[in-house]
Amino acid sequence: MSDGYLLQEGDLLPLSIGAALLGTGGGGNPYVGMLRARELIRKGAQVRVLPLDALPDDAWVGEVGGIGAPVVGVEKIEEGGECYRAMRAVEEAANVRVSALISAEIGGANSIEPIIAAALAGLPVIDGDGMGRAFPEVQMTTFFIYGAKAAPAAIADDKGNVVVFKHVKDMYWLERFARSTSVDMGAAAGLAIAPMRMDFVRKTAVPGTVTQALNIGRTVQNARSRRQNVVDRLIAETGATLFFTGKITDIRRELLGGFARGHALLAGSDGYHGQEGRIAIQNENLVLWVDGEPVIMVPDLIINLDLETGEPLTTEVLRYGQRVAVIGLPVHPLMKTPEALKVVGPQAFGYPDLTFHPLELKG
Amino acid sequence: MSDGYLLQEGDLLPLSIGAALLGTGGGGNPYVGMLRARELIRKGAQVRVLPLDALPDDAWVGEVGGIGAPVVGVEKIEEGGECYRAMRAVEEAANVRVSALISAEIGGANSIEPIIAAALAGLPVIDGDGMGRAFPEVQMTTFFIYGAKAAPAAIADDKGNVVVFKHVKDMYWLERFARSTSVDMGAAAGLAIAPMRMDFVRKTAVPGTVTQALNIGRTVQNARSRRQNVVDRLIAETGATLFFTGKITDIRRELLGGFARGHALLAGSDGYHGQEGRIAIQNENLVLWVDGEPVIMVPDLIINLDLETGEPLTTEVLRYGQRVAVIGLPVHPLMKTPEALKVVGPQAFGYPDLTFHPLELKG
Repeated sequence: MSDGYLLQEGDLLPLSIGAALLGTGGGGNPYVGMLRARELIRKGAQVRVLPLDALPDDAWVGEVGGIGAPVVGVEKIEEGGECYRAMRAVEEAANVRVSALISAEIGGANSIEPIIAAALAGLPVIDGDGMGRAFPEVQMTTFFIYGAKAAPAAIADDKGNVVVFKHVKDMYWLERFARSTSVDMGAAAGLAIAPMRMDFVRKTAVPGTVTQALNIGRTVQNARSRRQNVVDRLIAETGATLFFTGKITDIRRELLGGFARGHALLAGSDGYHGQEGRIAIQNENLVLWVDGEPVIMVPDLIINLDLETGEPLTTEVLRYGQRVAVIGLPVHPLMKTPEALKVVGPQAFGYPDLTFHPLELKG
Repeated sequence: MSDGYLLQEGDLLPLSIGAALLGTGGGGNPYVGMLRARELIRKGAQVRVLPLDALPDDAWVGEVGGIGAPVVGVEKIEEGGECYRAMRAVEEAANVRVSALISAEIGGANSIEPIIAAALAGLPVIDGDGMGRAFPEVQMTTFFIYGAKAAPAAIADDKGNVVVFKHVKDMYWLERFARSTSVDMGAAAGLAIAPMRMDFVRKTAVPGTVTQALNIGRTVQNARSRRQNVVDRLIAETGATLFFTGKITDIRRELLGGFARGHALLAGSDGYHGQEGRIAIQNENLVLWVDGEPVIMVPDLIINLDLETGEPLTTEVLRYGQRVAVIGLPVHPLMKTPEALKVVGPQAFGYPDLTFHPLELKG
């Protein structure tokens, strides 16, 4: 049993870089949250990252995350205390006090949201999360897939509004209520889920993902400082596989019911991986087809990197003419069991004809 | 100080007839709720109607009502316990027990909803309501106009979902959150507002409206049993004025964001009140123009009656070719103060050019 490590000011930028990459095109831009967390740590807040074996079985863990469409998230600066207030409302509704926070999703902005709430509350965060990536909907976490209760949960905005989902029939109803309330709130709010016992979190969280994001970010920083090709370094060090390189020829995005939906078309440029790429998007990248064949699909990770800089490209910054490397990374085994695929597999995203074929981890 | 009267099984039909008329075209059809309330009273439930002077100042009163679009309400049978469960959730959130229930709106289905909840809870109802008619939005009550707190409030559906609006910035935010949650719930749910002290309710409720609805319904029943013209009797006995008679030539209704919006056009038939009538609708009848002149407008009551039967016509049953009498009834003075007109006057409904001219109550 280890007591983990204290997050340093200098960890936050690489953490946010790695989290953006694990966001698989979505998850919201972690940059503003990173600045806010850095400010809190500069002012003396201490946030410890605890491994999954650190707390006793009966400790309570709060799951928090921002909720809203990432297209809005880029422009709308949250006040910062949304997740904290939602967490306090859930503690009151459940009549427990949490000993640590865990991220709903490590990909994108929600890598940082629990750190901000933890800094405000004087709590540690758990080294893990409920997705190992980003997903567009509330129920798409290992916690819910493996039986976490859907209520009480709570959502808070920057204006002082707090709504408690006191009895909710199941996780899909929670998604529905939380989504439309977040749209009412201006599509950027903090959501806290019913506290979970540590023995449950130990079995169900995707482990080590805060550290994973941090390491990915450090690899990117290190490659840049040495003027190495970032895409090559990431492929060499993260187990990712290059699936396509090309130029964006068409990009469509619409904001529908709180989600950014659309697709990107790419023309192949390396004469090796294929002529035509197509990526389906619902906040995140869902499926990559190359020359009509589906080659990566949810829940595995599809990541667009700028071919020159290695910068992970979120769906909202994709532009016509951009040169892109599309890499794939296998999702954690907890996310591809039969139970998990019902919630996060291709069928759950409206692709009844796709059968999930998992990527293999290289090396 | 009187202790009111016990509602009899035979009161419920005339109460629902009078309430439908006070619904001014909206408020939802009270018929299904009436059947349910009658069943509860047949099985032995006792619901007393208390006058506004019956309870001590520090007694708590719960305000409840159904929320949803009436076009849906006609078809969707609620389970019956929605308002009751919402009321219990609000009691818990506010940490008080209520001594009586009061209707948010006497017009339409919400005349009966508090009676069902009261029958289930073993509580009395107050002879009064928050509108003296029906209105489409949550904040449009005398309670909110005169300072009732917007939180905690709660909404419940027929599936066991309960959502608590724990901190809400103001009554408009409550309307926004409650409306979209009710749409999620299938556009028919029970809403309970923060309990109010009896001294506040005494000053702000529209008084005597349960009895008023009951009396209107009895007038209609009595006229029918004597084969008298119902429209004439209503005009003679309720202080209402006839403003138009004619045939419907066009009717438009759309379900937008949980509201039924549209208009009805009428061709005059009596050669006296005018050639052309136009009624604007948002769940309820908002404005009546005759030959281009606005002659009745919110918050005064605009009521369409079937010219032959005297049946009050809700907006969802209006049909091309129907012969209609349009009568007007002045709203209670509490609903036309400057504070009230900000919330329920023509401007609040999107008619910036209309200046409210109150109807006079006929001698």
